[in-house]
Amino acid sequence: MTSDEQLNQVRERINTIDAELLRLICERASCAQDVAKIKDAHGEAVKYYRPEREAEILRRIKLQNPGPLDGEEVARLFREIMSACLALEKPLEIGYLGPAGTFTQAAALKHFGHSVHTQPFGAISDIFREVEAGACDYGVVPVENSTEGVVNHTLDMFMRSPLLIAGEVTLRIHHHLLSTATEIGAIRRVYSHQQSLAQCRGWLDRALPNAERIAVSTNADAAKLAAGDPQAAAVASEAAAELYSLRVMAQRIEDEPGNTTRFLVIGPEDSPPSGHDKTSMLLSCRNEAGALHRLLSPFANQGISMTRIESRPSRQGVWDYVFFVDVSGHRAAPDVAKAITELRGAANLCKVLGSYPEAVL
Amino acid sequence: MTSDEQLNQVRERINTIDAELLRLICERASCAQDVAKIKDAHGEAVKYYRPEREAEILRRIKLQNPGPLDGEEVARLFREIMSACLALEKPLEIGYLGPAGTFTQAAALKHFGHSVHTQPFGAISDIFREVEAGACDYGVVPVENSTEGVVNHTLDMFMRSPLLIAGEVTLRIHHHLLSTATEIGAIRRVYSHQQSLAQCRGWLDRALPNAERIAVSTNADAAKLAAGDPQAAAVASEAAAELYSLRVMAQRIEDEPGNTTRFLVIGPEDSPPSGHDKTSMLLSCRNEAGALHRLLSPFANQGISMTRIESRPSRQGVWDYVFFVDVSGHRAAPDVAKAITELRGAANLCKVLGSYPEAVL
Repeated sequence: MTSDEQLNQVRERINTIDAELLRLICERASCAQDVAKIKDAHGEAVKYYRPEREAEILRRIKLQNPGPLDGEEVARLFREIMSACLALEKPLEIGYLGPAGTFTQAAALKHFGHSVHTQPFGAISDIFREVEAGACDYGVVPVENSTEGVVNHTLDMFMRSPLLIAGEVTLRIHHHLLSTATEIGAIRRVYSHQQSLAQCRGWLDRALPNAERIAVSTNADAAKLAAGDPQAAAVASEAAAELYSLRVMAQRIEDEPGNTTRFLVIGPEDSPPSGHDKTSMLLSCRNEAGALHRLLSPFANQGISMTRIESRPSRQGVWDYVFFVDVSGHRAAPDVAKAITELRGAANLCKVLGSYPEAVL
Repeated sequence: MTSDEQLNQVRERINTIDAELLRLICERASCAQDVAKIKDAHGEAVKYYRPEREAEILRRIKLQNPGPLDGEEVARLFREIMSACLALEKPLEIGYLGPAGTFTQAAALKHFGHSVHTQPFGAISDIFREVEAGACDYGVVPVENSTEGVVNHTLDMFMRSPLLIAGEVTLRIHHHLLSTATEIGAIRRVYSHQQSLAQCRGWLDRALPNAERIAVSTNADAAKLAAGDPQAAAVASEAAAELYSLRVMAQRIEDEPGNTTRFLVIGPEDSPPSGHDKTSMLLSCRNEAGALHRLLSPFANQGISMTRIESRPSRQGVWDYVFFVDVSGHRAAPDVAKAITELRGAANLCKVLGSYPEAVL
């Protein structure tokens, strides 16, 4: 067979697959409409978006994926298919921390797919307000950045908002070497946040062994300094390169590719159990020796693992500190429920912010 | 059957469909790998991205789509599936006019799907340079905006660049009523570009019959004016609302939902015939009475329809005007080829900028 004949054969096969894919995608959309009709006929309050069911499906897809596409990629395709099917019933309105083009918008689209309508807001408090008022179905806000630490404003909002956490999204963040220099040999100084420098240590040791490393308070500051000094480079994001007209001299120079930023999905309800869930809560106790240790003991007693703890000074004057705690497991699970009951007896404040599926993508 | 039983039945059906979809998507990705292997084995220059083939597939999908999803939505899902399969071989590097979050990035992702790597550049000339140098596989640049007219800088670049047009992308643009006012009754004045006011006339007649309409030079200027006047509103985009902290008082108020912006995909080669193509070219003639009419007669003689013509003053001093002309049909088609041959004899300048599939999505 000539190469053209072989190619035509494969292309015919692709055409057949495409026709079958189209049929199945449309059948899936019809099923989604059937679900809505059944609920409607039984007078149920129709809740189209089911985060726990979507998480289950995505996990199953990743598990069953035979390749050659990687698990993330097939899960992303299924996210888009589910997003399109959901939008048939009612396109979700998603508020996010703007401006457009930020990581938070990327997180919103990663979580809900591209068939939703996203709306940027200028402040985290605006997003809480819009979701509370029902103008948006859900909001997406940043909460944790492994380079810049916790986004405090989001945590503060939870102290006074009735909204719950319905999901989490993680995004991988990459570091690049940015400079105005035309060749890497000209670089004498590298600016960045301490943590970013640490995350790229191996690469910097190899590529720029003699350049001085200077820690500054943010990666954006580093980019600004590099923009004014032809012998300097910054370790920062692509966005910073653009903002300060720097060249990307080397891409993705982080030693471990696991640098992530975390976002939370906020809504009027949290999520039913999906099988792999987290629960977030706000806790507070008086500032006494051993108080925090005692406070957290119900988790240890139930064998529940804590995935994160952050302390924040309380703004309400009554307690000295408020702790944001994430644990593994859903609040409906017996062990988590028991720990929460114990906590409610012991803590000055115990506010469950919601249970939601662990990020799948 | 109870509603729960009915729902479980539909959900089981969805699970079966999902397993089948996963199998087919992965098989499709394997086929894409086979195509690469066959080409490799025959020592062919492997060109993975085939714009004409993608356009054919998307057109077929839209034609065969039985619903309930609309044609745009299924085509978008197939775009993503093709994008993921293509990225298995070699993820495309796409330069676009930044910053991130602009319509041009949206156009790049709409055309290539989300499995490519997009890189923002600050100027249209930078994108041409990076694609010419091979640092990017393709570039995406704005060329036409039905509200703001042609993007002249892009057209000027084509006069001196060897790059060709490999595709076009259109995006629908929506108009919103933006204001600092809390209710619509307070609005006495509406600012916007003349064309945007015209595009929303029906809505403005109904909702704001007594408000004065004031034409200004851009919609961004309108938003700025509205930001400083509590009795004013602007007709502008969501991005303008955000930039000037205006509230979106009414969404998508355009009378016809067909307001689009057009972008071009530039690359080292144009596209082979897909069945529904356009050809863009640069033409010039001396400024004499009837010259343009004579120049264009080969198109008329061959029955070729012209979809756009724009005149630009030439910067090269030799000709008075340069015309950018788009016609229906591929330059490999006999009628277009014949017209081009005739043009080459008659025009001072006849530079074919490329043939490419008409935008499908």
